[in-house]
Amino acid sequence: MQRARAIFLVAAPDRPGLVARLAGFFYRLELNILDASNHSDLYAEGGTPRFFMRLDVDLERLACTRAALEESFGELARTLEATWSVRYTDVIQRIAILVTTEAACLYDLILRQRAGELPCEIALVIGNRPALESVAAGFRIPFVVLPVTPETKRAQERQLLELIGRHHVDLIVLARYMQILTQDFLAEAPPAINIHHGFLPAFQGARPYQQAHERGVKMIGATAHYVTADLDQGPIIEQDVARVTHEMGPDELARVGRDVERVVLARAVRAHLERRLLVEGRRTIVL
Amino acid sequence: MQRARAIFLVAAPDRPGLVARLAGFFYRLELNILDASNHSDLYAEGGTPRFFMRLDVDLERLACTRAALEESFGELARTLEATWSVRYTDVIQRIAILVTTEAACLYDLILRQRAGELPCEIALVIGNRPALESVAAGFRIPFVVLPVTPETKRAQERQLLELIGRHHVDLIVLARYMQILTQDFLAEAPPAINIHHGFLPAFQGARPYQQAHERGVKMIGATAHYVTADLDQGPIIEQDVARVTHEMGPDELARVGRDVERVVLARAVRAHLERRLLVEGRRTIVL
Amino acid sequence: MQRARAIFLVAAPDRPGLVARLAGFFYRLELNILDASNHSDLYAEGGTPRFFMRLDVDLERLACTRAALEESFGELARTLEATWSVRYTDVIQRIAILVTTEAACLYDLILRQRAGELPCEIALVIGNRPALESVAAGFRIPFVVLPVTPETKRAQERQLLELIGRHHVDLIVLARYMQILTQDFLAEAPPAINIHHGFLPAFQGARPYQQAHERGVKMIGATAHYVTADLDQGPIIEQDVARVTHEMGPDELARVGRDVERVVLARAVRAHLERRLLVEGRRTIVL
Amino acid sequence: MQRARAIFLVAAPDRPGLVARLAGFFYRLELNILDASNHSDLYAEGGTPRFFMRLDVDLERLACTRAALEESFGELARTLEATWSVRYTDVIQRIAILVTTEAACLYDLILRQRAGELPCEIALVIGNRPALESVAAGFRIPFVVLPVTPETKRAQERQLLELIGRHHVDLIVLARYMQILTQDFLAEAPPAINIHHGFLPAFQGARPYQQAHERGVKMIGATAHYVTADLDQGPIIEQDVARVTHEMGPDELARVGRDVERVVLARAVRAHLERRLLVEGRRTIVL
Repeated sequence: MQRARAIFLVAAPDRPGLVARLAGFFYRLELNILDASNHSDLYAEGGTPRFFMRLDVDLERLACTRAALEESFGELARTLEATWSVRYTDVIQRIAILVTTEAACLYDLILRQRAGELPCEIALVIGNRPALESVAAGFRIPFVVLPVTPETKRAQERQLLELIGRHHVDLIVLARYMQILTQDFLAEAPPAINIHHGFLPAFQGARPYQQAHERGVKMIGATAHYVTADLDQGPIIEQDVARVTHEMGPDELARVGRDVERVVLARAVRAHLERRLLVEGRRTIVL
Repeated sequence: MQRARAIFLVAAPDRPGLVARLAGFFYRLELNILDASNHSDLYAEGGTPRFFMRLDVDLERLACTRAALEESFGELARTLEATWSVRYTDVIQRIAILVTTEAACLYDLILRQRAGELPCEIALVIGNRPALESVAAGFRIPFVVLPVTPETKRAQERQLLELIGRHHVDLIVLARYMQILTQDFLAEAPPAINIHHGFLPAFQGARPYQQAHERGVKMIGATAHYVTADLDQGPIIEQDVARVTHEMGPDELARVGRDVERVVLARAVRAHLERRLLVEGRRTIVL
Repeated sequence: MQRARAIFLVAAPDRPGLVARLAGFFYRLELNILDASNHSDLYAEGGTPRFFMRLDVDLERLACTRAALEESFGELARTLEATWSVRYTDVIQRIAILVTTEAACLYDLILRQRAGELPCEIALVIGNRPALESVAAGFRIPFVVLPVTPETKRAQERQLLELIGRHHVDLIVLARYMQILTQDFLAEAPPAINIHHGFLPAFQGARPYQQAHERGVKMIGATAHYVTADLDQGPIIEQDVARVTHEMGPDELARVGRDVERVVLARAVRAHLERRLLVEGRRTIVL
Repeated sequence: MQRARAIFLVAAPDRPGLVARLAGFFYRLELNILDASNHSDLYAEGGTPRFFMRLDVDLERLACTRAALEESFGELARTLEATWSVRYTDVIQRIAILVTTEAACLYDLILRQRAGELPCEIALVIGNRPALESVAAGFRIPFVVLPVTPETKRAQERQLLELIGRHHVDLIVLARYMQILTQDFLAEAPPAINIHHGFLPAFQGARPYQQAHERGVKMIGATAHYVTADLDQGPIIEQDVARVTHEMGPDELARVGRDVERVVLARAVRAHLERRLLVEGRRTIVL
């Protein structure tokens, strides 16, 4: 079994000595830093540079409880005016996948999780339609149908929150889920990652492949982003593209696009699970 | 010396037998077709499929004048309701490059032309500022300054048309030319290709790298398109992208972007000069 | 239901009039050519240029039997010294997938076939180990185990040929099949496509990711090729790459590589099924 | 004017506390670390993990001489068994570019240096043929011809060393220089970066585009690497590729390849000048 590690993410106003003070904290505790990276962002909102750091710490020699570790790290963070979080690698994260009818991203996430590429458990799959029940069933993953109409949206979102809470879900993944989540829902839910089948900010909204075909673009793309109340406006996590030609109609673009979508979504989910992502305003820092 | 070839471009309503009739025309004249490609577009404007064909024909055995060849091809085209054009490879095409202050695309076009990658002559370089005069002079290419203000725009565009006519220019290339050409100018001028330093349709208008940075995209791109009266809306010829990270500020994005811009522009100019491009509504067909 | 089409592939010594004579053949039969592309290869083995053409023909107005069509096309081909083949789109092609223990490519092919991306049926999956039986079973595809040892190789290959014959297999796909097929087998079997997990001709042979790591490359790739008796030397059909960094060990390279492998293999299989591939010496022509 | 910074590169046997001790060194001197990154390589030669770190340090508050700074850092390094180097950003690095007849990479390096993309001066250009003298002259860069024959090779390499010494050259760039440098030369010269016009380790040696065409690859590439006495075997710094088709002959591959070569070479030179490169056995670490 692999040794437990703690991954700390820190964001603070930039100032001299931050790397030394954060690294020194673990050094004094005789904890080895396996990997560290940091970034000073000169373009942070508000105009003052901000500092971001990811520390991957070996807990083998930890001589106190994790609660005590967090308490003393919290004290340091307060003096640095830092926000921070910690994740322990021996606490398995749990994700919920939301789907409608398209199977490619769902299959892809399940197969990668089974292959050990995504450090998580898939707690459940939730569809607003029943189309993909058999996919989930084939891998013995619970599947719940929550149909949504304008009238039932509020009630179904409460139901969704209840399910997510009961299954201890840490991350929601929208794998071509064709419903918009409300601000109320997002305020109470764990973070959510969406895959948009367009190269944002181009082709926002519905039917991006149809739009791309009409505009005659020579490359199409996909964008994974954190979900916010502003549709298709959340911080971008990952993007990629594929070359297309005039010979391809909208269906062909969709086929090529599916290959891009699933790779982009998987990379984004993986980066989140490995705690490589920090949000600064509308942008993400990938450490 | 290479043997002269004729490149025919044909667009017509799709119907059975078009390939056979077009190829048969040259067969009966005992002219060898060195290369042929065609495309039937099911998504043409108006709803009826359109047929596009490019024929690269060896003229070695041409037994009549070129005028006679064109006349008899014109007769066939009329029966097919086709529009068409022909270019002879021994008639060197002449281009004018319009610039403002950025040198990268200008250098790139000149060096490729010198290396034999672009089958054309660079007739002259025209700047709305004098900044790049020494670049043109270094390669002994005529350079003309035509400063543009709102008051002088109309007069300067007339001047531009006069220059283009006098130098027998077949193609205008906007190599980061920071002026908008009016519909009046475009109606009288030869075709014009522009390089937009953004991945259209995202980031239209000015300062795309600033926009890209604020939106936090993970890839940036460039787009070469034919110039139309609708700014940044002309038919897209070629696009490409490069990966960027959160560490890059707008200047760094511009640096990476320049490498994409110049490759994309060169590919588009080359495709036009080789007569590989046909315009269908807002899209280009690349044969 | 879609109308039946015939796809003709032709290879012949290059000479004037080939396009016209081939297109004219179908014109006289009043059959519409939906799509045609051709290529004259100046670098063909033996020194004389060779001509390749793909014709996608609508059979709606076919007034004779397919046998009669083939007979008269055969006559034309003889006068042109051409080799040729034809496939009818209403005759579903059948493939056999050979596997060992890696599931990614197998899943990928099955899911694409189910999504309608590959115009074929998966007749059966054959493993030299039983590891992937449940994958095939989950999609109700027959699975056969044929373990191979040096002593049983010859017998098992006869068994393989018998299975392939009984299931009317048109194409064999090696989806990370960890056995070498003998020349005797290949001489009797239908065409076979293999995915090599390296960017050929670099990293031939076993353990390419280990080799790539030791050499410190910055990109890794995958190559799909037709199988010949010379290991990893068959004509290349498709390749692609992904960027890697010094941070990645061999396992991480393998993870990134799997994403490239499956996309490259799927593109190659699709191109073969759509009859876009012609072999010229050690190279493929993709029409 | 930008404030002077010092960039330290450190390599040491991995052990707990390295980040803290290195960062703490500068913290105690009240020097701000603007950027830091590190990597622990588990695959280092010899089997014991090695630690690599790059520290970009603001010298504004430096209260001692640079010699004193280096002396105390050297003491720390000794206790850590570390090798290290430092570069000051206000000491402009000087490069020599070696060429033969191909102009594309030479132009590219000069234009990037002029555009401020490469933090260096181009001290001189040296050709074993005079072909590119006018290119250097056009930018007022000294050009020296040193023709090489088997008989004169040793004498000319001594001449080369002398020139490099006299011009205070820190880095040699082989921009399509068609001569092999001897081990004797390399032992005395500053580091040298070469661009190989193939996707190493495929297509080593001469005429890679001819080889690539014969093998029928679907992508071609270029590789920038440090020069060692083993031809084409030095540590790879950067690679990239471009897609090609069966339609392209060796000349066309060379044209596409030139675009890849110059971008790859420029990235490698830039990474070296910014002190982002560390060599570990046959691999490079890019920090």
